Amino acid sequence: MPLSDLPPDELRAFHAPGTAPDDFDDFWATTLAESARFDAAPKVTPHPTPLTTVDVFDVEYPGFGGHPIRAWLLLPRARTGRLPCVVEFPGYGGGRSRPLESLIYASAGYAHLLMDLRGQGSTGRTGDTPDPVPSPNPQFPGMMTKGVLDPHDYYYRRLITDAVRAVAAARRIDDVDPHRVVAMGASQGGGLAVAVGALVPDLAGIVADVPYLSHFRRAVHIACDGPYLELSRYLRVHRDQVDRVFRTLSYVDALNFAPRATVPAAFSAAAMDTVTPPSTCYAVYNAYAGPKDMRLWEFNGHEGGEVAGHERRLEFLTGVIG
Amino acid sequence: MPLSDLPPDELRAFHAPGTAPDDFDDFWATTLAESARFDAAPKVTPHPTPLTTVDVFDVEYPGFGGHPIRAWLLLPRARTGRLPCVVEFPGYGGGRSRPLESLIYASAGYAHLLMDLRGQGSTGRTGDTPDPVPSPNPQFPGMMTKGVLDPHDYYYRRLITDAVRAVAAARRIDDVDPHRVVAMGASQGGGLAVAVGALVPDLAGIVADVPYLSHFRRAVHIACDGPYLELSRYLRVHRDQVDRVFRTLSYVDALNFAPRATVPAAFSAAAMDTVTPPSTCYAVYNAYAGPKDMRLWEFNGHEGGEVAGHERRLEFLTGVIG
Amino acid sequence: MPLSDLPPDELRAFHAPGTAPDDFDDFWATTLAESARFDAAPKVTPHPTPLTTVDVFDVEYPGFGGHPIRAWLLLPRARTGRLPCVVEFPGYGGGRSRPLESLIYASAGYAHLLMDLRGQGSTGRTGDTPDPVPSPNPQFPGMMTKGVLDPHDYYYRRLITDAVRAVAAARRIDDVDPHRVVAMGASQGGGLAVAVGALVPDLAGIVADVPYLSHFRRAVHIACDGPYLELSRYLRVHRDQVDRVFRTLSYVDALNFAPRATVPAAFSAAAMDTVTPPSTCYAVYNAYAGPKDMRLWEFNGHEGGEVAGHERRLEFLTGVIG
Amino acid sequence: MPLSDLPPDELRAFHAPGTAPDDFDDFWATTLAESARFDAAPKVTPHPTPLTTVDVFDVEYPGFGGHPIRAWLLLPRARTGRLPCVVEFPGYGGGRSRPLESLIYASAGYAHLLMDLRGQGSTGRTGDTPDPVPSPNPQFPGMMTKGVLDPHDYYYRRLITDAVRAVAAARRIDDVDPHRVVAMGASQGGGLAVAVGALVPDLAGIVADVPYLSHFRRAVHIACDGPYLELSRYLRVHRDQVDRVFRTLSYVDALNFAPRATVPAAFSAAAMDTVTPPSTCYAVYNAYAGPKDMRLWEFNGHEGGEVAGHERRLEFLTGVIG
Amino acid sequence: MPLSDLPPDELRAFHAPGTAPDDFDDFWATTLAESARFDAAPKVTPHPTPLTTVDVFDVEYPGFGGHPIRAWLLLPRARTGRLPCVVEFPGYGGGRSRPLESLIYASAGYAHLLMDLRGQGSTGRTGDTPDPVPSPNPQFPGMMTKGVLDPHDYYYRRLITDAVRAVAAARRIDDVDPHRVVAMGASQGGGLAVAVGALVPDLAGIVADVPYLSHFRRAVHIACDGPYLELSRYLRVHRDQVDRVFRTLSYVDALNFAPRATVPAAFSAAAMDTVTPPSTCYAVYNAYAGPKDMRLWEFNGHEGGEVAGHERRLEFLTGVIG
Amino acid sequence: MPLSDLPPDELRAFHAPGTAPDDFDDFWATTLAESARFDAAPKVTPHPTPLTTVDVFDVEYPGFGGHPIRAWLLLPRARTGRLPCVVEFPGYGGGRSRPLESLIYASAGYAHLLMDLRGQGSTGRTGDTPDPVPSPNPQFPGMMTKGVLDPHDYYYRRLITDAVRAVAAARRIDDVDPHRVVAMGASQGGGLAVAVGALVPDLAGIVADVPYLSHFRRAVHIACDGPYLELSRYLRVHRDQVDRVFRTLSYVDALNFAPRATVPAAFSAAAMDTVTPPSTCYAVYNAYAGPKDMRLWEFNGHEGGEVAGHERRLEFLTGVIG
Repeated sequence: MPLSDLPPDELRAFHAPGTAPDDFDDFWATTLAESARFDAAPKVTPHPTPLTTVDVFDVEYPGFGGHPIRAWLLLPRARTGRLPCVVEFPGYGGGRSRPLESLIYASAGYAHLLMDLRGQGSTGRTGDTPDPVPSPNPQFPGMMTKGVLDPHDYYYRRLITDAVRAVAAARRIDDVDPHRVVAMGASQGGGLAVAVGALVPDLAGIVADVPYLSHFRRAVHIACDGPYLELSRYLRVHRDQVDRVFRTLSYVDALNFAPRATVPAAFSAAAMDTVTPPSTCYAVYNAYAGPKDMRLWEFNGHEGGEVAGHERRLEFLTGVIG
Repeated sequence: MPLSDLPPDELRAFHAPGTAPDDFDDFWATTLAESARFDAAPKVTPHPTPLTTVDVFDVEYPGFGGHPIRAWLLLPRARTGRLPCVVEFPGYGGGRSRPLESLIYASAGYAHLLMDLRGQGSTGRTGDTPDPVPSPNPQFPGMMTKGVLDPHDYYYRRLITDAVRAVAAARRIDDVDPHRVVAMGASQGGGLAVAVGALVPDLAGIVADVPYLSHFRRAVHIACDGPYLELSRYLRVHRDQVDRVFRTLSYVDALNFAPRATVPAAFSAAAMDTVTPPSTCYAVYNAYAGPKDMRLWEFNGHEGGEVAGHERRLEFLTGVIG
Repeated sequence: MPLSDLPPDELRAFHAPGTAPDDFDDFWATTLAESARFDAAPKVTPHPTPLTTVDVFDVEYPGFGGHPIRAWLLLPRARTGRLPCVVEFPGYGGGRSRPLESLIYASAGYAHLLMDLRGQGSTGRTGDTPDPVPSPNPQFPGMMTKGVLDPHDYYYRRLITDAVRAVAAARRIDDVDPHRVVAMGASQGGGLAVAVGALVPDLAGIVADVPYLSHFRRAVHIACDGPYLELSRYLRVHRDQVDRVFRTLSYVDALNFAPRATVPAAFSAAAMDTVTPPSTCYAVYNAYAGPKDMRLWEFNGHEGGEVAGHERRLEFLTGVIG
Repeated sequence: MPLSDLPPDELRAFHAPGTAPDDFDDFWATTLAESARFDAAPKVTPHPTPLTTVDVFDVEYPGFGGHPIRAWLLLPRARTGRLPCVVEFPGYGGGRSRPLESLIYASAGYAHLLMDLRGQGSTGRTGDTPDPVPSPNPQFPGMMTKGVLDPHDYYYRRLITDAVRAVAAARRIDDVDPHRVVAMGASQGGGLAVAVGALVPDLAGIVADVPYLSHFRRAVHIACDGPYLELSRYLRVHRDQVDRVFRTLSYVDALNFAPRATVPAAFSAAAMDTVTPPSTCYAVYNAYAGPKDMRLWEFNGHEGGEVAGHERRLEFLTGVIG
Repeated sequence: MPLSDLPPDELRAFHAPGTAPDDFDDFWATTLAESARFDAAPKVTPHPTPLTTVDVFDVEYPGFGGHPIRAWLLLPRARTGRLPCVVEFPGYGGGRSRPLESLIYASAGYAHLLMDLRGQGSTGRTGDTPDPVPSPNPQFPGMMTKGVLDPHDYYYRRLITDAVRAVAAARRIDDVDPHRVVAMGASQGGGLAVAVGALVPDLAGIVADVPYLSHFRRAVHIACDGPYLELSRYLRVHRDQVDRVFRTLSYVDALNFAPRATVPAAFSAAAMDTVTPPSTCYAVYNAYAGPKDMRLWEFNGHEGGEVAGHERRLEFLTGVIG
Repeated sequence: MPLSDLPPDELRAFHAPGTAPDDFDDFWATTLAESARFDAAPKVTPHPTPLTTVDVFDVEYPGFGGHPIRAWLLLPRARTGRLPCVVEFPGYGGGRSRPLESLIYASAGYAHLLMDLRGQGSTGRTGDTPDPVPSPNPQFPGMMTKGVLDPHDYYYRRLITDAVRAVAAARRIDDVDPHRVVAMGASQGGGLAVAVGALVPDLAGIVADVPYLSHFRRAVHIACDGPYLELSRYLRVHRDQVDRVFRTLSYVDALNFAPRATVPAAFSAAAMDTVTPPSTCYAVYNAYAGPKDMRLWEFNGHEGGEVAGHERRLEFLTGVIG
């Protein structure tokens, strides 16, 4: 409950040097080009619900390697013309869950595409998308060390690509205005949003709440709870893989995407967050190259802004996509 | 994570004798009659939100003693005629929070009145309604021992009355069909729903998920977490008040309301629930006098059914109020 | 068990700027003047016990708003003339308990007035005094946020006034020498003693052991246990009330009373105290304007000096009131 | 916080078979006879304190093996004639501490001899008496396994003898009426009191609150906290010593002293006690051969009755020694 | 630390009905036949170490689906003729680790084949073998729910087959006497040993210490720690998959292998084991069809016998393979 | 799991001033001279085991005061000539255990003398050697405060002497080459190794993994777990003994032995070690006067290097004793 990281004043001033390897941009250009080959209109199937104000569709689109990725699309029933759209990425361990849990953005008039997380979806919110790629290395339970010994094998290479492809899929949906798309998420979803902000330069904006996947080198030293610990636990027994693991992580670290992103961004951090320590969120925020705003929740943990955070997101969305 | 109460088969067979004092019915008849004097149309004020599919109103109605009680009213924007209505009571410590958190029922076409909890609303979801009655006894922090030495002073006499008056208030709202009202809640809200089911015999039904306020005598012996512990902690120092405290509790125990309720009811319990132990939920369920259904979540704790619970509630609502 | 705050050397040098609002002195002058209107001799009723060396009396005196406040008065049975007196304030959550628990000071020849705590008295030591003022805001369980949105409504405005009036009541007791009165307490009682030391300038001295209610701004950031957390928990959900809450707290912060107090004072702090972090105690000590002494218990938590602390208190009492 | 042992009704009916070895009575007769050789008047030295109503003396008397055992003697300053006397044994890990902590019984007119605990006195209350006998076996930290492989070497053979000799020492003090002596204690002190009740048949009575050293075979299976765990932890590594350890324990188990004791006794147990599980206390109580009374604290843990327990003790003392 | 399951007497009498589906034997016959197609001599490569008394070899053999499985082979350097052999399976999460950790059995004169665990090997002891099969369902972190929705996809179908093939591989090693092979393991390794005991009827014996994978239906209700919780956590969110999951588990439950196994067996259980509750071990033991012996460690948790367990294993090995 | 001490860069630079009292060298010279009087060839008795590659002997030698100290001697069965030897000291609470647990060093060709720990041996690994000296002061459970009020009485004076005498004993064993002896241990064993390195200047080297008994003044402030806490717990109640205790500790602090040791040394520390905080290990390492090497395990706690640490030890041994 007390502060577990720097006090607020020091947080605001916290900077960290980037760690991008020389081939960072090539790596991602190649990765995205490979997956772009599988570009195809998403399958959009009406999904019956008891709702009367919102229409729900079960979506499947080709992600990394063309693997089928599921998503929910929620649209306000009373709609005309192409809608501004939010593409949302869930937090770690979860999935797209059931559509009843995600009514806010469609109820506010947006097209809302909620991406499923390959292989996750069993620790909190459910998911429906497997990850068809096995780990070439024995991994610590969870996703953080799946393929972590080589950046090409790493799980997050696939997941970030899925997120980029989710935006592409959203833009091919008839009800969506492709010029007004925002990528959004909290925790892991926030880290993905930063990556997408860098990799999809014509987005209308991103929302990155208490972003995970941020400044791994510091995070593994100070996080007390949550999935960063999978990395420490792995390195605790694989003592000879420290450099190799951090090299892989440098390809997916939001700290390295941030200076490459120029779209408007709303960030948040929580001063008592033991899962995504606030200094790691500020490190990314301070490195971010686009117009930006940070909200510090001084007395919150990883839950961050909760409903107040949704209200802030809606304000930001109004500003960037109306 | 393991079972902390009886195994499923024994749960299903678990009965407990009622503990209602002789004047139980008089006590409530008198209490409700006193508060009925303050009957008045609720104040219903439009509350601006960014939502486009749901209209929100800030409601204030007279509860116990005529004290002003706040509530949210959510209505589907596209509505015609009088709507079936759900009156919902939050769980312990919470409040009506912000309307963005409660979109499901209005999005499914119901009028949704979400009652605030006097004096609560600071431990999870926020609330806006104070309790203007001080405790005549020094109390343990929380609500469970506020006025617990006399049933007339007891906090839950007021809260149950507020819940009964919430139904009355809902019925006076123009958009609500007074013949199609269901009272609903989880945990404390579930306990309140059982009481309302007994005290408002012309309701269309109740939903009582993982009900709290149920079979106190057993609950204080086996609950590991949550507000039942306030009672044990109080009695730990006020060693000479045990009988007096349980006498007061007998007036608000769902176990004593259950055999007086005849409206259709959907119950749930969770086999790994350490807050409202499942045997205490089954005791109430098995004593309930109306048509009823129980769902046991075998691998869940106090979170119960979560979104699957909402889906089940919607099925039940369709059955009883369309 | 390890240090949870600064190491001893840095503790000794720790200073913090005061936060008293401009009308701090007016606020308290007005508050005390209002309550002084209820000045009346305390009711002192013999209380039978099996003790043969100490006489016990049940005391009731008018506190804030003239509300009746209970206390125990213990006097050595073998007494002659007017006695020096200690007025003691209990720690958070407790109350005056039973007189058998408080025999030290009367057994050492002092009149001992042990004030009850309005509304507390159910989490450890029992109490008998309710707080007849309800909270105008929904509060977090406990006392820290009762009325916290306005300094006039705040619980601690009442409790500090009760403490000031306890000294006045003690001075009107026949067996007490009004010129030889010391205010004393640990934790919350220590914070109250500092306030009384500032508000009753003709006291003979104060004892403030591990004082609570001290330097709130830092305390909420570093305390790991205890009632400071009520404030963080409240602000965790009432995110928009941070400034308002700290403004209210500034009226009762021992940090602001300390530079206004000139009576002799014995302080203590504990280096491993996670409830009232030692730096917050040193901040108050270093700001204190009167003659003063600090004892640091290097290997203790919030229990502080325990019986060694009582021995030190008796030494101090001998020095200032004989 | 919940019940961790049988519910109250089953507690009251709980019996356990005795486990006394055939030579149990011989063992103790021989042991006590050996130590009786060191009988000598205790050294009673005035100990200066700031107290004015109670006189304190530092006592040293020969315990097991003639080893010097310290104690405090507290007497009401205003005394005439020989006083009834309570001999008290502290709980596990503690010692006689400082006299300021033990004012109740002298303040109520009794001579109060508070025995120190050889070798203990560093985990809570301080002590001043070492145990001059080393353990012949490598032991688990604490006292429970010191010499546990042979009943003659066992620490508790010495401690029980010290307790018996404390009564003898008390009776040789001028201010004490040797016909009106009660042995008293809580937890370990309660277990010692039961042993003394059996071994000193002309005592006036005993008080055994939440007695420890009771029904070891069950205790090691169900105690969650406290020193019974030292035994489990020892046997966890010394897997081949189970029978030998329980044989030794059978010589000091209160369950085996109880049917040999006929003096009046006041017992207590606490339903939520995880240190001395209430069923182990009831096993001893139900086996006790003298006039007896049991108080169950339904909502308490190992703290038992606290000040209410002292009040009950004083009632009992009045009944048996005036 | 206290008992967390039945007391010893009830453990010994604990039986549970088998849950084998009708096609259980077919399922395994087909599975093993498919993998037997990949039969090939293991690759045995000398592995340099600083050891002078034991030779170490890095082994790779075809497991389920012909996937390459690693193992260590340790042989006493001074050896003549074909050696009796122990094939060991590690506990959950671990792997074959480094050979220095496993010197006991080769130092006692046995050929020791230590199988690696596909996909595990990162939570305690390291491993070197990936699992090349992805999970068709989003899984809870760990192995317990990998492919759990269909017995053919289930991870443990592959792992049990790997264990059966390890025995086959051992028998093809020149230094090994194929008629004197024992399968051995603790926890997960013990569960595998029971399965191998049933599936390889000409083994010389098995050792199953604190066996995991045993009586899942009870285990998920009472285990407090360890991997059984992965199942509860999965079912907590995948509420509609309970029957399907337990159907899959019935194909790998040691409870169903036990009545099919007739080779001599040494079992153990630990009375304070919260990971593989002792009643689940006894259920398997009591169902086991071969000559058998059970050792209950009364004061141990999941660590079981530790070095005393190794000594017992060596005794058993001497008895069955010399 | 996160860092609980300084980050790696600051660890490397961490120095602390020595605290050796003036008579430090005299104290140890006198102590060792007294025990050298009991010099005698160790009793070496063959100990039967099922091992075929290693011979085991039960050793007893005179330690401090001539007290008999047990040890295991393990030798490779195939041996010729005098062997290089490692003398190992176990960690806190343990003992020499059973020889099956310690096969690595003899299997690598070394004579391995594993000293037992007087009075310990019941909290993890078993021991067989009692400490025949009682504590002159009531102690906190464990060894850290046994005799802590006087350096001559202190337990660690005896244990360090036992360790020095173990080297002398090893050198008198026929199979041992007295010129090639290394002292080795982890945690408490590492602290002992540093002391032996200073007190036996003709050793061939030492291994001190995560050394305990190092820089007590800082350790008691920052250690979160383990035996340093015994000191804080003792001083928590014996508030007046702080200086006296730290004076005693200065005679056994590895920080004071380090600058007196000149033999080659291999150190390790673990960045997440909450038992022997890494800064206390670096303080000793940086003060060490001989050739030295430090390995920091960045993601480990007090377990340190585990099998990787054994591999590193073997490398070091090869370097210094072949």
